[in-house]
Amino acid sequence: MMSETELIARFFRGLGAQRDDVVLGIGDDAALLRVAADHELVLTTDALVEGVHFLPGAPASSLGHRALAVNLSDIAAMGAEARWALLSLNLPQAEEQWLTAFAQGFGALARRHAVALVGGNVSRGPLSITVQMAGVVPAGGALRRDGARPGQLLFVSGSVGDAAAGLKLLRGELQAPAAAANFLQQRFEYPQPRLELGAALRGVASACIDVSDGLYVDAARLLRASDCGARIALEALPLSPALRQAEGDAAWQRALEGGEDYELCFSAPRDRLDAVAIAAARAATAVTRIGVIEAGQGLELESGNSLTQFSPLGFDHFRD
Amino acid sequence: MMSETELIARFFRGLGAQRDDVVLGIGDDAALLRVAADHELVLTTDALVEGVHFLPGAPASSLGHRALAVNLSDIAAMGAEARWALLSLNLPQAEEQWLTAFAQGFGALARRHAVALVGGNVSRGPLSITVQMAGVVPAGGALRRDGARPGQLLFVSGSVGDAAAGLKLLRGELQAPAAAANFLQQRFEYPQPRLELGAALRGVASACIDVSDGLYVDAARLLRASDCGARIALEALPLSPALRQAEGDAAWQRALEGGEDYELCFSAPRDRLDAVAIAAARAATAVTRIGVIEAGQGLELESGNSLTQFSPLGFDHFRD
Repeated sequence: MMSETELIARFFRGLGAQRDDVVLGIGDDAALLRVAADHELVLTTDALVEGVHFLPGAPASSLGHRALAVNLSDIAAMGAEARWALLSLNLPQAEEQWLTAFAQGFGALARRHAVALVGGNVSRGPLSITVQMAGVVPAGGALRRDGARPGQLLFVSGSVGDAAAGLKLLRGELQAPAAAANFLQQRFEYPQPRLELGAALRGVASACIDVSDGLYVDAARLLRASDCGARIALEALPLSPALRQAEGDAAWQRALEGGEDYELCFSAPRDRLDAVAIAAARAATAVTRIGVIEAGQGLELESGNSLTQFSPLGFDHFRD
Repeated sequence: MMSETELIARFFRGLGAQRDDVVLGIGDDAALLRVAADHELVLTTDALVEGVHFLPGAPASSLGHRALAVNLSDIAAMGAEARWALLSLNLPQAEEQWLTAFAQGFGALARRHAVALVGGNVSRGPLSITVQMAGVVPAGGALRRDGARPGQLLFVSGSVGDAAAGLKLLRGELQAPAAAANFLQQRFEYPQPRLELGAALRGVASACIDVSDGLYVDAARLLRASDCGARIALEALPLSPALRQAEGDAAWQRALEGGEDYELCFSAPRDRLDAVAIAAARAATAVTRIGVIEAGQGLELESGNSLTQFSPLGFDHFRD
């Protein structure tokens, strides 16, 4: 049986990118890192718990990817650059095959975004994965939730609702043709955090949040922080062909309330529409204008000429 | 039932110290923090898992304290200053009384060391607590594990073995008079991280580690990182009167192999003995000279005129 030290040395040391700003990585009491003087430090943490955020038996490679991706997405939503990750793993047992696949999923995504794994710990316990991400952003340049103003436009990246449909497929609660099913499951198991887009939106977006709990719930959070309301056009929601195929008439509802997409929802002034398009092109990420920020509170949904009522079932572990 | 957002707002927002270098705390996608130009960032994470690091039914106030203390101890071992904490909590249910006591234990220790809680998440799941600590240290000034050299002296702070005896008392595996039992249990439930001592040892100690898994195991880690051996005098080990009372002749063994004390074990050149004493006095923390660093490998234990053989049962979840 491996010790924790052996296990970390074998599967996690040197995982991810090699970075010059890592003075001291895994192996001491803490990591030592360099932050440039004109930058602010950005810190976030998020966890995946078996039975809550993933199904028992979920592929380890996907878990390694998602545990990092959900944190990278928070960094992206701040318009920041991801740099250093810490990993806390609670494992029922140390299975070599599982650990190899987990490290592969984590490591591949980390290298893609130049993130170094600089510390962590492994404990015996019910399976859960907690990652902490540290990044940097030019001082004063971060995208916050509270900068939306009435009259500005509301956008979302990529397509929404896919990951929730992918999870339903994995649970056997939904059927779809193989190609569509494959696409949707990939969207759930290997979400792509929008770091390039977040960075490109610095100086362009007025507020930004990542869509982790569903577009309706997360847009409402951005609006609440900004003390504004918004009107969203249902027909404008970016739905993937696979989602339309799998969900039919329920696709727009999945797009509003389905979580785990890790797209960015953001606002920008009308006169920055061109700048938004340039940012999207530079990041090679689709961006769709879905509505307009309004004075007041709440989120109105517009369909054709009528307003639609909607009570979202946003993802919240402590709400029954 | 509370939502995660409500729960965080009610129990965790504003917990710990208020710091001027927190640009943005709990409530956005990530926290924004300022690091001075001539400092390095110090990052660490550690977790407490029910049934592994604490007994089911352990007092929530102690868990809040310990989850933070074990991380502060890593910052102390680097000679760094603790600043910002993130908290990931997996909870079977949101019990108000438990959360209040947990936040009280966490918050009191955080305020004592001027640490701000700047982010985190709460998930439903088997009870486990993961904390991430970020701190700073003057660039190049951190205490690492790899600087011990033959001929230097080896030290430990406070007393060792107390927490392990306290845990045995709580488990009903040991008996002791009330005053001794109370002291030892406190040492397990409310360990005091040695941040003042760690900071005072910058420029004095040549290597440092915190004693989390037992003095023998952690001293061996420091020696391995420094590519040295050491000889420790058993009679020199700092044993508390309570430990002697509770453990009798087994006290020195508990002192060597018992974990969870969160003292600092460090080396320093002989000609810095006065500086060590000054650092200890400034930090108001007892420091005991326990041995000498030697060329070669391994840890020899000296008792009177003889060398003792010892196989430690260091704390490691993945070793059976």
